[in-house]
Amino acid sequence: MSQARIYLDHAATTPMRDEVAEAMRPYFFENGYNASSLHAEGRRARAAIDDARARVAAVLRCKPSEIVFCSGGTEADNLAVIGSARARGPRGRIVASAIEHHAVLRAVESLRAEGYGAQFLPVDESGVVDAERFGAALDAQTLLAAVMYANNEIGTIEPVAELAGIARERGVIFACDAVQAAGALPLDVGMLGVDLLALSGHKFGGPKGAGALFVREGTPIAATLHGGGQERGRRSGTEDVAGIVGFAVALELAESERAAYVRRTAGLRDRLEATLLAIPGAKGNGKAAARLPNISSVSLSGIAVEPLLIALDLEGIAVSAGSACATGSLEPSHVIAALRDRSERRDRREATLRFSLGRKTTEAEIDRVGAVVPILVARQRESAAAPV
Amino acid sequence: MSQARIYLDHAATTPMRDEVAEAMRPYFFENGYNASSLHAEGRRARAAIDDARARVAAVLRCKPSEIVFCSGGTEADNLAVIGSARARGPRGRIVASAIEHHAVLRAVESLRAEGYGAQFLPVDESGVVDAERFGAALDAQTLLAAVMYANNEIGTIEPVAELAGIARERGVIFACDAVQAAGALPLDVGMLGVDLLALSGHKFGGPKGAGALFVREGTPIAATLHGGGQERGRRSGTEDVAGIVGFAVALELAESERAAYVRRTAGLRDRLEATLLAIPGAKGNGKAAARLPNISSVSLSGIAVEPLLIALDLEGIAVSAGSACATGSLEPSHVIAALRDRSERRDRREATLRFSLGRKTTEAEIDRVGAVVPILVARQRESAAAPV
Repeated sequence: MSQARIYLDHAATTPMRDEVAEAMRPYFFENGYNASSLHAEGRRARAAIDDARARVAAVLRCKPSEIVFCSGGTEADNLAVIGSARARGPRGRIVASAIEHHAVLRAVESLRAEGYGAQFLPVDESGVVDAERFGAALDAQTLLAAVMYANNEIGTIEPVAELAGIARERGVIFACDAVQAAGALPLDVGMLGVDLLALSGHKFGGPKGAGALFVREGTPIAATLHGGGQERGRRSGTEDVAGIVGFAVALELAESERAAYVRRTAGLRDRLEATLLAIPGAKGNGKAAARLPNISSVSLSGIAVEPLLIALDLEGIAVSAGSACATGSLEPSHVIAALRDRSERRDRREATLRFSLGRKTTEAEIDRVGAVVPILVARQRESAAAPV
Repeated sequence: MSQARIYLDHAATTPMRDEVAEAMRPYFFENGYNASSLHAEGRRARAAIDDARARVAAVLRCKPSEIVFCSGGTEADNLAVIGSARARGPRGRIVASAIEHHAVLRAVESLRAEGYGAQFLPVDESGVVDAERFGAALDAQTLLAAVMYANNEIGTIEPVAELAGIARERGVIFACDAVQAAGALPLDVGMLGVDLLALSGHKFGGPKGAGALFVREGTPIAATLHGGGQERGRRSGTEDVAGIVGFAVALELAESERAAYVRRTAGLRDRLEATLLAIPGAKGNGKAAARLPNISSVSLSGIAVEPLLIALDLEGIAVSAGSACATGSLEPSHVIAALRDRSERRDRREATLRFSLGRKTTEAEIDRVGAVVPILVARQRESAAAPV
């Protein structure tokens, strides 16, 4: 008897919403021509992009001209970090939190290879960047600071408005990876005070391959993709009209449903954690901090993560060990490592599971996961304890 | 009485094929999860990408591991040029033809700003790169040469196999922009002998925002997008499963229909040119060289291009003045300028129109265009000659 699958890996990706697919469809065909062409077909594509840009700008409460459409969160983060650093100076320092997404961390590392300086700020045991420490790290050579809005593995929300304010006072550009936060937290860039904000469509029911970067007017930015000069010279490449439309529709829907979504998923998340954190040796990562409503990161001591993930998958439950990365690597995550002190890191053998809920997640699904996980953990512990 | 529009701007973009949209659809939803996730949903997405990669590799007659999926032609060209130059050496020279697409030209220029040397090779009056001159340009400092397979504005086919052979002898990496050639010319990378070959899905009935770069095994390549390390570390970012599937299906279809497509569009193109080149002061660009079957570039002396394009658009005919670029700029194209000698360039006021045919272009459409263009040209000349 096959049971429906339970997908609790929405932080890795969300299925596209029907409304989004519906909205995109005409732009594959009669409305999806080259927006840089001057004829009627081209102007129709241009109008669709203009409209999408205005809708995205309305959610972010910025000017349409401050939105750059691109191929996704990774490109948006790269453009924010590399584009602003290169535009600001041939040399200088970049300060970023130690728990940034790899799209930010590795962009910073690539700048370091070019001769820029880099400093990665530690976080507290909940994953929060300390504002005082952040301010102390910004010296006269610092041109860019990057701190994410909310962490993609543990859901911790960073004090972005406060940090951006400190950066502004020091004349340091502030880049914010909001890829995981979008749909759950307000994206008002005036309130946040950030100079750059990166978004990815497929994290909130939009298409993959579609992202956007907010670039505050006046923020220097050098293109990272070179060619026809689309997006006002900030991002070359024939515009993916359908992807851009889908991105905008998905963002608008997510924003309009945000309050209800947050209430609902936070309730389900708490219900799930009530069971999971009762497992002996379980620890809720980031639980002491303000968190995204839909992510629960649970570390289980003495447990090997791979067999547990496989066992869950066989039970029809899709979760992950952390972020979905290139190789499906199960190495300890840099985020979890940053939460632990050094001795704890060395001594502790633990499995970390990320449960990430979506807008269609049900109470019944949560209850089944809450029932299955403790059994599988107990089973692994028993078999580890049994004589071979 | 409204007449159906005639779209002869397929070199700018092609509408998506129904078969492609159909093939993509499941990957927006139940099959389009994150391919880097280890659970069943993720493995399903991974399998779709593996399958697409094998299908693309079969068309190019290369190994699947030599295909890197990315966001389009611009990114593929940028990765080819910037990725290989940076991987090969911190310094060195790059040789490229003067009529490369801006995605190549501006990538080379960005390398020049980093300290690389660059040389742009002139072409003959048909747009062909001379092999001897090419060989002479490759000195001991040259690490990379870039010559396109076929030009996007005039359709001229370059002697890529010969040039790539010369580059190989000298130990110079050879990058080839095949964005406009795909669907019309064979893409067998063994026969071509190129090290890097860039493709864009929307030029042959596939989706926008989807491209691929062939990277011959052993060719050094440094990623230009940094993050999760997808595509074997060569291109980070969550894989756009639907886009990748659509790209592969479109390429396969184009390849299987290629011979018939070439025959048919070349016939229609010749039929069109029989009329257009009979216009007084008309000149067929690239006509003396081997050309793509679907592009006809016609220069008309003493004509202003913008009013002609507008008049054609009002008649329901969509063509372009050259490549579709960011701003819809009508500045004289760098390609047409490269075909003319200096005195000709200074003296000549001319309009260049690019007519680019597609697989659904009909004889009736061609005949109507052939009837309308001479009338509009004559009308503009009369009104220019008339006393104001």
